[in-house]
Amino acid sequence: MKRIAIIGGTGDLGLGLAARLARSYNVTIGSREETRALEAASRASALSGAALLGQENSVAARSSDIAILAVPDLPSDDLLGSLKPDLAGKLVISPIVPMAFRDGLFAPSLESGSAAEKVASVLGTRVAGAFHTVPAARLLEVDRELDYDVLVTAETKEVFAEASQVVASVSKLRPLYAGPLRNSRMVEGITPSLLNVGKLNKIRSPSIKIV
Amino acid sequence: MKRIAIIGGTGDLGLGLAARLARSYNVTIGSREETRALEAASRASALSGAALLGQENSVAARSSDIAILAVPDLPSDDLLGSLKPDLAGKLVISPIVPMAFRDGLFAPSLESGSAAEKVASVLGTRVAGAFHTVPAARLLEVDRELDYDVLVTAETKEVFAEASQVVASVSKLRPLYAGPLRNSRMVEGITPSLLNVGKLNKIRSPSIKIV
Repeated sequence: MKRIAIIGGTGDLGLGLAARLARSYNVTIGSREETRALEAASRASALSGAALLGQENSVAARSSDIAILAVPDLPSDDLLGSLKPDLAGKLVISPIVPMAFRDGLFAPSLESGSAAEKVASVLGTRVAGAFHTVPAARLLEVDRELDYDVLVTAETKEVFAEASQVVASVSKLRPLYAGPLRNSRMVEGITPSLLNVGKLNKIRSPSIKIV
Repeated sequence: MKRIAIIGGTGDLGLGLAARLARSYNVTIGSREETRALEAASRASALSGAALLGQENSVAARSSDIAILAVPDLPSDDLLGSLKPDLAGKLVISPIVPMAFRDGLFAPSLESGSAAEKVASVLGTRVAGAFHTVPAARLLEVDRELDYDVLVTAETKEVFAEASQVVASVSKLRPLYAGPLRNSRMVEGITPSLLNVGKLNKIRSPSIKIV
């Protein structure tokens, strides 16, 4: 069974992904502080019914085959750089959406480029963008069926296929290829619109389907 | 019955919208050349079973209550300027998505801002962005049910409500408010991703639903 590390996985997205993925993978929740990682792992274990580990981020990264960066915003070059040796040669999945909240609405916060490209340029390993439009609140409802589409960016079809296995292991999520990493800006840009539409039309935890 | 002018409406999007809307509105197809407008009107009439008119763009605009700019790309300031007097005080709907096609994939082509904001700034009337993700090919299949969501940008809830009536008159399209016109860049940016996903995953004429 492959090992997945959820880096910075103590928030709702990390917990939800961890609890869902623990049904198909050996999952370790990572955090800057080991005690917080252990606490989150115990919550995720209770949610999923499978046993998860909790470790400091770099320890979790080192012992993983695949890492998901469940951090709330674009990580600093320092954090990424410190993880680089531990993630070398591994698949890294970025669900990161750099966003700002202004005048009651969400908007992309990066002037140019994307989180996935930034992550790839610093880590120098195989990176896929995915999970941007999967609501954390729905992941946490571990018995709820998630009939959503997930746009995935990756430099090659092979990396897309690797990331797709992870996506498709969660409920009914359907991975769809959205092109190379340079398309990540477009894909990451869908989330703020989705959140605005949810807020303005009273749709709780909105996600998308391509029809 | 309100009168809708489909400006530059001789392409597939214009024809499809015209044929669908002619069931609830008096629709005129506009074109730079009256003969092309008449030809398109006769095709749309055959499709919809309702009688449509064909007129030169400014004549169509003048006699309308609502105009839809079914042009393939951001219109020039000259074209918009020439329509300004005829569209004063009217609702103008922009389905325009400024896009480039490079290396086999679509991407937004505007450096900043959006088509809807540009249209609003030149015309100085009530503008809504809508219909960006409704495939022309599906509109043309006039008996096909269109169970899609349509994100609508508009400066106020009142203008959103006006535009929503037009959107909701087409099959099962569901208008959703996506915020003021400054959000149009995000909304217009969804279409190139959608087209890429369609192309890369062999989904014909893709559209979206918020779930």
